[in-house]
Amino acid sequence: MTLDKGKANCITDVIGVKVGHVTLYEKLDENKTICTGVTAILPHENNLFYKKVRAGSAIINGYGKTTGLAQLEEIGLLEAPIMLTNTFSVGAVWQGTLEYMLQTTKDIGDTTSSINIVVGECNDSYLNSIREQAVKPAQAIQAIEAATEQPATEGAVGAGKGMVCFGYKGGVGTASRIISTEKEHYTLGCLVVSNFGKREEALFADWGKHKLETPDGSIMMIVATDAPLYDRQLNRLAKRCAAGLGRTGSHLDNGSGDIAIAFSTANTYEHHAGKADETMVYLRDDHEVMNQLFQAVVETTEEAVIRSLQMAETTHGRQGRTIEKAPF
Amino acid sequence: MTLDKGKANCITDVIGVKVGHVTLYEKLDENKTICTGVTAILPHENNLFYKKVRAGSAIINGYGKTTGLAQLEEIGLLEAPIMLTNTFSVGAVWQGTLEYMLQTTKDIGDTTSSINIVVGECNDSYLNSIREQAVKPAQAIQAIEAATEQPATEGAVGAGKGMVCFGYKGGVGTASRIISTEKEHYTLGCLVVSNFGKREEALFADWGKHKLETPDGSIMMIVATDAPLYDRQLNRLAKRCAAGLGRTGSHLDNGSGDIAIAFSTANTYEHHAGKADETMVYLRDDHEVMNQLFQAVVETTEEAVIRSLQMAETTHGRQGRTIEKAPF
Amino acid sequence: MTLDKGKANCITDVIGVKVGHVTLYEKLDENKTICTGVTAILPHENNLFYKKVRAGSAIINGYGKTTGLAQLEEIGLLEAPIMLTNTFSVGAVWQGTLEYMLQTTKDIGDTTSSINIVVGECNDSYLNSIREQAVKPAQAIQAIEAATEQPATEGAVGAGKGMVCFGYKGGVGTASRIISTEKEHYTLGCLVVSNFGKREEALFADWGKHKLETPDGSIMMIVATDAPLYDRQLNRLAKRCAAGLGRTGSHLDNGSGDIAIAFSTANTYEHHAGKADETMVYLRDDHEVMNQLFQAVVETTEEAVIRSLQMAETTHGRQGRTIEKAPF
Amino acid sequence: MTLDKGKANCITDVIGVKVGHVTLYEKLDENKTICTGVTAILPHENNLFYKKVRAGSAIINGYGKTTGLAQLEEIGLLEAPIMLTNTFSVGAVWQGTLEYMLQTTKDIGDTTSSINIVVGECNDSYLNSIREQAVKPAQAIQAIEAATEQPATEGAVGAGKGMVCFGYKGGVGTASRIISTEKEHYTLGCLVVSNFGKREEALFADWGKHKLETPDGSIMMIVATDAPLYDRQLNRLAKRCAAGLGRTGSHLDNGSGDIAIAFSTANTYEHHAGKADETMVYLRDDHEVMNQLFQAVVETTEEAVIRSLQMAETTHGRQGRTIEKAPF
Repeated sequence: MTLDKGKANCITDVIGVKVGHVTLYEKLDENKTICTGVTAILPHENNLFYKKVRAGSAIINGYGKTTGLAQLEEIGLLEAPIMLTNTFSVGAVWQGTLEYMLQTTKDIGDTTSSINIVVGECNDSYLNSIREQAVKPAQAIQAIEAATEQPATEGAVGAGKGMVCFGYKGGVGTASRIISTEKEHYTLGCLVVSNFGKREEALFADWGKHKLETPDGSIMMIVATDAPLYDRQLNRLAKRCAAGLGRTGSHLDNGSGDIAIAFSTANTYEHHAGKADETMVYLRDDHEVMNQLFQAVVETTEEAVIRSLQMAETTHGRQGRTIEKAPF
Repeated sequence: MTLDKGKANCITDVIGVKVGHVTLYEKLDENKTICTGVTAILPHENNLFYKKVRAGSAIINGYGKTTGLAQLEEIGLLEAPIMLTNTFSVGAVWQGTLEYMLQTTKDIGDTTSSINIVVGECNDSYLNSIREQAVKPAQAIQAIEAATEQPATEGAVGAGKGMVCFGYKGGVGTASRIISTEKEHYTLGCLVVSNFGKREEALFADWGKHKLETPDGSIMMIVATDAPLYDRQLNRLAKRCAAGLGRTGSHLDNGSGDIAIAFSTANTYEHHAGKADETMVYLRDDHEVMNQLFQAVVETTEEAVIRSLQMAETTHGRQGRTIEKAPF
Repeated sequence: MTLDKGKANCITDVIGVKVGHVTLYEKLDENKTICTGVTAILPHENNLFYKKVRAGSAIINGYGKTTGLAQLEEIGLLEAPIMLTNTFSVGAVWQGTLEYMLQTTKDIGDTTSSINIVVGECNDSYLNSIREQAVKPAQAIQAIEAATEQPATEGAVGAGKGMVCFGYKGGVGTASRIISTEKEHYTLGCLVVSNFGKREEALFADWGKHKLETPDGSIMMIVATDAPLYDRQLNRLAKRCAAGLGRTGSHLDNGSGDIAIAFSTANTYEHHAGKADETMVYLRDDHEVMNQLFQAVVETTEEAVIRSLQMAETTHGRQGRTIEKAPF
Repeated sequence: MTLDKGKANCITDVIGVKVGHVTLYEKLDENKTICTGVTAILPHENNLFYKKVRAGSAIINGYGKTTGLAQLEEIGLLEAPIMLTNTFSVGAVWQGTLEYMLQTTKDIGDTTSSINIVVGECNDSYLNSIREQAVKPAQAIQAIEAATEQPATEGAVGAGKGMVCFGYKGGVGTASRIISTEKEHYTLGCLVVSNFGKREEALFADWGKHKLETPDGSIMMIVATDAPLYDRQLNRLAKRCAAGLGRTGSHLDNGSGDIAIAFSTANTYEHHAGKADETMVYLRDDHEVMNQLFQAVVETTEEAVIRSLQMAETTHGRQGRTIEKAPF
């Protein structure tokens, strides 16, 4: 009783959501290869600081460096694009994203408050010469500016360029589902950067014969929906990514930063509106739609991981290492 | 690359752990049937208040009424048996467990501090006339006194008597795994009371053709190990139950209280020892054993759910309702 | 720049909120004295299960046994009266409150879901023979039925009968504040059961000369407001009780269960309304009223503690112990 | 019954702890002034990545951008200096700190895992032209290299250069306490960057007559101790900062990121030791020393805030604004 897939089976099936990638790939010398990138996810095409979206998150395994979650939890709002990159580029991408927001929003830090930047990461140092810190702030801005509502490119691209999943080439994957009842019709999409798991752990394939020793890795999971939900409910959605991960075979390994962020494009929230109250329409937790949304999170998380493997190509990285395309 | 099962594939494979059931079953009239019970899990055979065990927990979906988790989190210790029952018997079982502890521990509430009672529950009101509140404090004491180190009875027994899982008869299930390296050799077991899911959601069976409308339910998951771990690490173990649940097909439905508690039988902690410090030996998080322990949690959670279905028999309950044995 | 007090400086200044006490006091023999009680707080006069209120909580120090917080956090709703009592009567009061709700709500556990019972506690075993478990389920029902919108009795009454605060007689205390701007006019009240602190710690008095050794204790803090807030915001309110506690001189001692629950009487939420969505009007976090609400929580928590001392009388308890009225 | 102060009443009274400041101050033109800085706190003089320290944290009000807390909570370890700066320099300081750690630790990101960088911030944009992003990665490295075990400079220095507290000049403040029993003798210190509060809110002064409208601000609180504690216990310490803040008059305002981090210099933890287990000696939570440590956190947090005001000088900032020295 799986749910129907969205038109492009992509997070951008949620109207307004945009994805942009910048991919860096260059063999520097025998030992060093730049094999990394940045991925930006924009909930809508307007200025996010002025028109924030409701958001929640779940730290499924906290061995990760994602920034911005404390404020996201406290206030329940996202006010900048969600940025994904490698572990050592969190600073540069944070910086670039801030610069983008300052350039496009003149009053931040001047006549109004500061801004909360959300950058997630996985460690691509198996293939990427991560110590080189090849990503610069400018590339974060490029990724934001490159974002489109078109179906996102998947596989070894953007933040997924150097990632390894279940011992094969992972990276960016996405999937979407339609939730519908007589009256309601919603879309939910998930985009992951997959970088976890050992070959013998995959439940969706029989890869145990040829082991490959890889680090614990991580996974970033971004869930978008047009269903009108608020922070607490979006926290609930984000938590369901754990069940989707479980389906793939993940044991949420010690060193794996498994972090989920969920946002709704409905019910945007104006910055400092100068008014005392807000009116919000939201779905009841006990309505049948909610369980379907939970199901959609589980299904899209699982499928996005699998697609990240299906869409990625064999990739050569630092120290002569190669990670092969998964043998589906 | 699954782990080896323990001798009896039961939580009692962890040396010292005892399980006891009290089952209540009586047809009162055409509409009312008592179909419920109590299950007690004892980490060891000694007085738990004097010899506490390290413990952690994870509220995977908080739509549940488990008592005692705030203090368990704050102090990282378990000082009374873990009790499982139906939702409306939490008070009675809490009361009975307190009485048992007061009887066996004369200084509690007199010359020393109070005690923290942990009672978990699932809602068995599909089959059980839960409003009758058939469970009395005495039955909690009976369950504790009935506990043995023998392999636990599974299926429609104890707290599992009236539970429904994936639209078939669920209840108590358990499984265990051996974690071993050259030097270390540990056992981890999980016991669940399963009461969640719709037929069409099961990933381990093809039950989607004959739907049955049942409530969202809940699941209690108790993890025991003899590996020397402390509170933070046991929280991590408990969290991994979410991945095991995901494997079965659960979407962590809105109304399902999905709650996990994990304890270690190593490193017991003496009550008010009158000394300033403790010495503790514990496993490093980055040692390979930790990921195997995580794997063991995922595998035993999944298998315990499946076994709860395999071992349960067709059960007749209130209002002429019948829940059938799962057609494996 | 303190805020104005409410009409009666009581939690019942929030329209609709009712407080009821049952006090038990009896000298059984030379050593044993029953010196305890139950306090019930009702957000409104209607059936709470059908007309739930938004709620949040904060576990400031988790060395406590309060029930029901997991579901309150998950769903953001309160659906039964908040009950306060002694540590060993949690089971009995839980049971009595359930019975009250079952009697007044025929479909709970039959044709609809279960119910979440919230019982908070402090350990009054310095004065009260707590092992006697004198409180019975019937007394919980009595406390609920005794609840009125009149200014609550304070001091050594209800759940506060046996409590000790800063080495003097504590118990029930309450305070309220008015939050008002040009357009808005809200009331916030706090009721505490105070049972913590040593004489030398009080910042509002000079009691350090005559020390008295008392256990770490606990404090329950219940915040009510008619300001339209939702769960996340009410969690924020509850957290501010920590600052109010800090003002009194508390160090949040190890063994002190310091737990806060906050609810709003605005925006009630109908049980299983059979509709998909809700419309909610709520205050913006960045509006000036929010900081005033925070201030009101801090001020009323502090003042409620002080009032609990001012209003309590010298009380004789078990083993010939006497706790004196505080020498203000 | 306050505790004795440490030798220099400074966080560096905890043996091994070092503090370093870099201060930036330059009037660029009529409107723009750089008035900011960086402060580094090092738990010991050795490589922190190889010799990690136990740590915990508390997000008292999450309206802040501190990085690194998810991993700190998950693993309970700190593996890089704690860095403090202004809100828009989090990226640059994160980057500089990473570079410092990469330079001094060749295997990070090459033959071993990644590293978790902790950067806290307050918003100094009232005085500082924060949009200029004057802090560069090199200044983070300078602050680390400038760190000494000498008593830390306080007031308008380092990360505190542009901060405003209770409407007067705030910034860096510190205090320490001695915890001692017959056998034990420990030191606890706290360092804050204070940037919160309105004049009329201060409980330790009578400043309400001359109001000044300032933004909600923030406070970073860093607690160090040589008492042997582990992660869960250090989370408890960090939480007590809320009570200290309450004492000063704070209401934990909406826009104030009030974040505490606590670490112990005892029980260091070797990176990838290649062994399965660790032996740890730690203080029992129920020993009297623990409550004294809690008291020390409350007292030093309060005093560090007051000292940050006492030690800061009148400072001129952007747009011709001046924040005066507090009139003690």
